[in-house]
Amino acid sequence: MSAASLSGFRLAARCARLRPSAIREILKTTAAPDVISFAGGLPAPELFPVEAVRRSADEMLGEEGADSLQYGLAEGHPPLREWVCAHLSETAGLEVAPDQVLITSGSQQGLDLVAKVLVDPGDTVLVENPSYLGALQAFGAYEARIVGIPADRDGVQPWELSRILESLPRPPKFMYLIPNFQNPTGTSLSAARRSEVAALAASFGVPVVEDDPYGSLRYGGAGLPPLAALPGAHDRILLGSLSKILSPGIRLAWLVAPNRGLYEQLVSAKQSADLHTSSFAQRLAWQYLRRPGALREHIEILRRAYGLRRDAMLRALERHLPEGCRWTRPDGGLFLWVEVPRRIDAGALLREALRRKVAFVPGAPFWVGEPVRNTLRLNFSNACEERIEEGIGRLGRVIAEAGNR
Amino acid sequence: MSAASLSGFRLAARCARLRPSAIREILKTTAAPDVISFAGGLPAPELFPVEAVRRSADEMLGEEGADSLQYGLAEGHPPLREWVCAHLSETAGLEVAPDQVLITSGSQQGLDLVAKVLVDPGDTVLVENPSYLGALQAFGAYEARIVGIPADRDGVQPWELSRILESLPRPPKFMYLIPNFQNPTGTSLSAARRSEVAALAASFGVPVVEDDPYGSLRYGGAGLPPLAALPGAHDRILLGSLSKILSPGIRLAWLVAPNRGLYEQLVSAKQSADLHTSSFAQRLAWQYLRRPGALREHIEILRRAYGLRRDAMLRALERHLPEGCRWTRPDGGLFLWVEVPRRIDAGALLREALRRKVAFVPGAPFWVGEPVRNTLRLNFSNACEERIEEGIGRLGRVIAEAGNR
Repeated sequence: MSAASLSGFRLAARCARLRPSAIREILKTTAAPDVISFAGGLPAPELFPVEAVRRSADEMLGEEGADSLQYGLAEGHPPLREWVCAHLSETAGLEVAPDQVLITSGSQQGLDLVAKVLVDPGDTVLVENPSYLGALQAFGAYEARIVGIPADRDGVQPWELSRILESLPRPPKFMYLIPNFQNPTGTSLSAARRSEVAALAASFGVPVVEDDPYGSLRYGGAGLPPLAALPGAHDRILLGSLSKILSPGIRLAWLVAPNRGLYEQLVSAKQSADLHTSSFAQRLAWQYLRRPGALREHIEILRRAYGLRRDAMLRALERHLPEGCRWTRPDGGLFLWVEVPRRIDAGALLREALRRKVAFVPGAPFWVGEPVRNTLRLNFSNACEERIEEGIGRLGRVIAEAGNR
Repeated sequence: MSAASLSGFRLAARCARLRPSAIREILKTTAAPDVISFAGGLPAPELFPVEAVRRSADEMLGEEGADSLQYGLAEGHPPLREWVCAHLSETAGLEVAPDQVLITSGSQQGLDLVAKVLVDPGDTVLVENPSYLGALQAFGAYEARIVGIPADRDGVQPWELSRILESLPRPPKFMYLIPNFQNPTGTSLSAARRSEVAALAASFGVPVVEDDPYGSLRYGGAGLPPLAALPGAHDRILLGSLSKILSPGIRLAWLVAPNRGLYEQLVSAKQSADLHTSSFAQRLAWQYLRRPGALREHIEILRRAYGLRRDAMLRALERHLPEGCRWTRPDGGLFLWVEVPRRIDAGALLREALRRKVAFVPGAPFWVGEPVRNTLRLNFSNACEERIEEGIGRLGRVIAEAGNR
């Protein structure tokens, strides 16, 4: 950015970390209707419960229309916070209180607030490597020094975590993990490793920020306890969201912070950031969620459909990808992760793929430190099974040609 | 905050500026139904266009339900950004382009993003003194050094602004002004001073951040041009909002930044903060706003009602406040500003007032530097004329007693 183009404006130092997202630009080029896109993290629009939301909106506006248009509490709408507690108790066996719950405008805002309250420039934050790009951006915007923990198909490797914690001159500000169906890899932290990671966090005094947007979208395997429920997990923040199980467009998520002092700081930061999350969206969601079984039944529909799409993608990968490719087999979530032969750069591959009208996200921006360039992320929730088969066929041909070149 | 109460969490340095808002706490104590509250900045709930919003929600969900529940663009919903351009052209004679408009989750978020992109710790930011508390919090959270420009009933004093600009070792990062019906004082920057301030900003190379949430709510006097429309105003950011003219609960506002490089940084900061503002809220608002005349007619209703309430409050102040009190006579907006005799501290006065079931906001937190403690802010939009008369009567008695003590 040249100074001239900014005229009298002089940017803050942190803007060096606030570059336009590579993914945002990719998503724009892949939005054309003739492109089969595995690039975004978009839910299937045909499965949104539009009619139920329409009924809920009408009922809500009839019952509490003026309240839904008025200012609300920074902490969030109390009945929705109570619903979050019931939901966590039911789905994760986790008991929390409404005054530990902060409603946020999507989990992205939760990550921004956590960084705003905890990160001073140069502070160390640990993340799985690779990790969610939006988290890297949010932490980077506060000039965190982000350190990647090596991970494999069972999640972060506890021995590597231990080695890193021992080598740091002072403990990191926190450790950010997505234990269930991670973005971008689709892998989950195994039960044994959850215990080891929780124990390491406790013994080194490192707070854990646990992000669980996909936990309810399980298509196989057994449920695992959240880190927040394990012994020694006193210093914890848990993030959850309606984005993947109801709607991302309404921008509703939650952050649970049992630590009182920290919770109060997060509420102040939330107020400073946008006063509060939309009263309208919160009351609308509550009207939908209060109907017994409404969300559970909707999640069942998503699990069935997305499970079939995951299976379709795994079959298509088996069928169409050339030798030398490997991929993860997620038990849930929205994504899987592909490793192509080492000589292929996924960025160059994308340009070829777009010519064949198929899109994905190259893996490079998800990596901390040196990117592994022969990796890419595929989303399987947004396209139907036929388009998955057709799209992976196209991708397979593009990879084969790149490998022969 | 003791370290022990935070356990393993270590707060960032900026948290020293993120204290729980005094006003948030006051508003909680004044929410009881038997209290007549002039404390908040709340629109009149009985005037919200609930039925029109209900119709719009139903139509919108029928026409574009899935899109309203899906992820959207960081910049905001394109038709809503086009509406903002038409609205600014019609109401302020200002011509801007949709790709200069960023939709935000309320103007508070606009202020947060501006500070995030421009403010390094220790940077100087100029504001009217007193100024909007939410802006002071947002700028303070990025450790700005906030300098107050002395102001009177015609807004900031250009000779004081000039003196401050000459005395600073380097130009401030920006100057933040609310030229129309300012919060907290209700005063407006006069036409002559607008020209002088714009000229000073241009000659010292200081960007102007102009916040105009109340401009459409005029009950008297002639309209004045925005600073952004005056000569020399190349480096500018203009903030506007639906909060006071449609609904604060839907959290929709806009930020106009004609500077391309700055706009791109603001979009990146927005994406890092919460990805994008609710697709649902944006499409709902657009469905309401696209109906020709809908907003204009609603604003007419608000102007009539709030104008009568302002008049009722001015009459009641005349009738009930003891000698030695002075107050502003705003041409619009939601607030007026009262100066009580110098020996009275408005914070102590509030405790007495709450015993008599009437509430206001003490002026102290709005001041930069040494607070003028015998000042207070009154809101006249939220209570009906009868309750205004009754509430100001109670307030007058409390002030008289405090003066006699």
